[in-house]
Amino acid sequence: MPAPKKTSGCFEIHERDLAGRIGVLKTKTATIETPALFPVVNHVKSLVPIKTISRIGYQQIIANAYLISKHSKRTAIRKGIHRLLGFGGAIMTDSGAYQILSHGHVEVEPSEIIRFQEAIGSDIAVILDIPTPSNASRNEAEESVEITIERAKQSIKQRKRKDILWSGPVQGGNHTDLVEKSAQAMAKLPFDIYAIGSPTTIMEQYQYSNLVDLVTTAKRHLPLQTPVHLFGAGHPAMFALAVAMGCDLFDSAAYALYARDGRYLTADGTLHLEDLGDLPCECPICVNTTPKDLTGLDEQRREQSLAEHNLYVSIREVKQIKQAIRRGTLWELLRMRCTTHPRLWEGFLRLTQYAEELEKTDPLPTPHQAGITFVGPQDLSRPEVLRHQARLLTNYQPPESRDVLLLIPEVDMRRAGLPRNLEEALGDLSPALVHVCIYSVAFGVIPSELVETFPLSQHILSGIDEQVSNKKMGDSIMEYISKHKRHYHEVILLIDSEKHSPALYERLRNSLEQKGIPCKLLHLPS
Amino acid sequence: MPAPKKTSGCFEIHERDLAGRIGVLKTKTATIETPALFPVVNHVKSLVPIKTISRIGYQQIIANAYLISKHSKRTAIRKGIHRLLGFGGAIMTDSGAYQILSHGHVEVEPSEIIRFQEAIGSDIAVILDIPTPSNASRNEAEESVEITIERAKQSIKQRKRKDILWSGPVQGGNHTDLVEKSAQAMAKLPFDIYAIGSPTTIMEQYQYSNLVDLVTTAKRHLPLQTPVHLFGAGHPAMFALAVAMGCDLFDSAAYALYARDGRYLTADGTLHLEDLGDLPCECPICVNTTPKDLTGLDEQRREQSLAEHNLYVSIREVKQIKQAIRRGTLWELLRMRCTTHPRLWEGFLRLTQYAEELEKTDPLPTPHQAGITFVGPQDLSRPEVLRHQARLLTNYQPPESRDVLLLIPEVDMRRAGLPRNLEEALGDLSPALVHVCIYSVAFGVIPSELVETFPLSQHILSGIDEQVSNKKMGDSIMEYISKHKRHYHEVILLIDSEKHSPALYERLRNSLEQKGIPCKLLHLPS
Repeated sequence: MPAPKKTSGCFEIHERDLAGRIGVLKTKTATIETPALFPVVNHVKSLVPIKTISRIGYQQIIANAYLISKHSKRTAIRKGIHRLLGFGGAIMTDSGAYQILSHGHVEVEPSEIIRFQEAIGSDIAVILDIPTPSNASRNEAEESVEITIERAKQSIKQRKRKDILWSGPVQGGNHTDLVEKSAQAMAKLPFDIYAIGSPTTIMEQYQYSNLVDLVTTAKRHLPLQTPVHLFGAGHPAMFALAVAMGCDLFDSAAYALYARDGRYLTADGTLHLEDLGDLPCECPICVNTTPKDLTGLDEQRREQSLAEHNLYVSIREVKQIKQAIRRGTLWELLRMRCTTHPRLWEGFLRLTQYAEELEKTDPLPTPHQAGITFVGPQDLSRPEVLRHQARLLTNYQPPESRDVLLLIPEVDMRRAGLPRNLEEALGDLSPALVHVCIYSVAFGVIPSELVETFPLSQHILSGIDEQVSNKKMGDSIMEYISKHKRHYHEVILLIDSEKHSPALYERLRNSLEQKGIPCKLLHLPS
Repeated sequence: MPAPKKTSGCFEIHERDLAGRIGVLKTKTATIETPALFPVVNHVKSLVPIKTISRIGYQQIIANAYLISKHSKRTAIRKGIHRLLGFGGAIMTDSGAYQILSHGHVEVEPSEIIRFQEAIGSDIAVILDIPTPSNASRNEAEESVEITIERAKQSIKQRKRKDILWSGPVQGGNHTDLVEKSAQAMAKLPFDIYAIGSPTTIMEQYQYSNLVDLVTTAKRHLPLQTPVHLFGAGHPAMFALAVAMGCDLFDSAAYALYARDGRYLTADGTLHLEDLGDLPCECPICVNTTPKDLTGLDEQRREQSLAEHNLYVSIREVKQIKQAIRRGTLWELLRMRCTTHPRLWEGFLRLTQYAEELEKTDPLPTPHQAGITFVGPQDLSRPEVLRHQARLLTNYQPPESRDVLLLIPEVDMRRAGLPRNLEEALGDLSPALVHVCIYSVAFGVIPSELVETFPLSQHILSGIDEQVSNKKMGDSIMEYISKHKRHYHEVILLIDSEKHSPALYERLRNSLEQKGIPCKLLHLPS
């Protein structure tokens, strides 16, 4: 057994986007990059040989300590989990909680499974928590939360090895106040990883908006520097959502379960082998292969091939997510993936309701930052929008002695400085008195001196209908002027009659005049 | 030279979705499945060896007959195009029109390039058309259309070989009335393929909504049974849009041009090699490779590797599109891809304005049909919705002697027949007099006897806000009742207070009573 290493500081965050991050997790055997997917392996007979899982690129797997202790206890203790499974990467072991969820009970004591995981030398171990099923009554949910907290406290005293990363599960299921309580209690206990328990049944029923409530509530009370594991995050189509909410680790048996059922995963859905005309993938299993070739294989080889493809597709999605975080385009990836199923879309829309929380963790532009895009009203909840609007109302001061606010439409400014003929239209008003701001569907008011700041000039927008954009933009303009009304004596509003209706301008003028601020509507001379 | 074969009936359509289709195109050398992408190859030195392009899975390529005639005329005539390029699949040759677009002229006569393409034995040949640039004035556009039509007519007399598939280009660019004129004229001439000319500059400027106008207008006047080629459809992110509009063939040099510039294509965007942290792909180039490995290659091998990856990604997208057509989910794929760029999204929204035309070509459910999904107001323009609503208003007759229309909310019906307690609520009204219909955000009115018809019970919906859904659904309900008002003496409207506001029900009741139809609002006893 190697000498125990210190485990504090096992996790470093390198890049962030929304609440997601790319990090490095050090376990006693391996250093893995997160977000990381742990394929679930069966210790007796893995559908895909563990060597193959490793070759596909997985540096981490998860096995079930409860089942191993039930069937191969002595061998496992003698060999250790890494030799038992023949895997040199990071091995996480689950404690039997999933069996509690499916069978109602397990034949093991909480302390026993802790000792066992230490004895076999798991990299990451989990206490024997009590999962909250998605349909749990309040009493059942409360009980699962309380027993889990109690067992977590006990586990701290019971555990001996310092080189194992211990996971503390958060329970509560669909009862968000209990999730809150659970997360608060767990956050006080010294765990290396927090695990969000029992979303399996929630996900099986496609309750992605409930999942968003669950994870976002838990994350709010967990320390930001500690990695978070999401149990049973199965389908690659939802990985982006999981990561965007701040999950760093997840495990999945979907690749194998789906394969046994003849199902072929793609990042945007699931296809039955019999529905496939082509294999829309270029992984080593699919390249130069046809669905007929796969159908022609004997059952075991067919299932294994499907499972390998499913593993390739899953790791590709993890790589796409990392790439999106690096480019600051996780929102775009998430939006794209969530269009694939209306329940996922509901999850995405629910996440936009937590926009203020996303804004807190979303970083400033990264070195590889891409421009940001808007294709619908949901995108007006982007963290960048909230941040800009909040700053305008708190930190921002308009330049001194420019007491005429000139609001010009976005397009003109972006094309070539001030619009042509503007000087003519302004008459003898001295430019030194004018503060030029742009009004923008995406961002509301953009002071011209900030226009080159990311992402104000690096955004592209479509798909927001006039009613929504006029309302939102009108409100933002009014908020800005109300906040800074002592600064401005007059507002001149340059009309963009192609993009906005006269109603917007009339409404703004009326609102301003009610506040005692004179407002002039200006058409550019043509 | 092989004996000329008859070319009529060179194209068979096997499956359809929206205006897209999977077909089989027979050329004199090969039988290719469509939609098919023709990589542009350089006859002197191809960045990716033509053998490799073939190995990646492309059974068709396109070369430039004008450039070949300029540089290697004699050799090409002696060897024939297939031996010259060393490719046994279908070879399309372009005529030099692209050079006209970029250089303003070419040094070749229209008849000369026809003779040359016959002499080298192209599978698919193009007449020397005059492209319309995206910024063409009306006069310029008119001229390009007229000269192209004139040359097309001439070409019919000039061509000798019957085994070559001739393409007739449609011009007009952003002037849709000229596109119409051009397509109408070309449709009268015996071409095996119609080609939509010069979208290159439109696409370079991301004017996807203009592209939709151009292609949809052209398609409207071209025979449905003839394959349509879209010139210069570059990036895989727009292939789904091109196919959904009814393009069967497209060519692209993007894989090589982007590679030369260090750019790595994905189905949802483009990344510079230097911005890549992982290679989010499992193709033979990327699997077990890192961006560093690629950066470390010498320039030629790096560009070739990037280009090969770009070809893999492009062919994967074609396979995904075919798979989507087979499953009837091209709308879903299109929606997903178009979220990746606001200009593509504008193209998608523009396409929804041609919903009635899509409805005409969109087929009944396929054998592998998946359920249909709604995630936003744009999806209410799906062909399935339009078809259902049109049928209700034209062919449909409510069952005889049921003159009370009972409208119940969708969810209840789908869950378990009639809602619990309904009988109690209906009092002594005989069920034999009641015609039960469901009201649905997606479909409006669904007569209960049709509820099992695809896709009425195979749809999932989210993301449509109440204002939009109440307006649309209210209008559909009123249209249905107005049409069938002689049939019904009374309307009973079962309220779903969780999903819809009282305003919807009040509005409906008022509208009905104005039309003299008594309407009762009913709450279910709890």
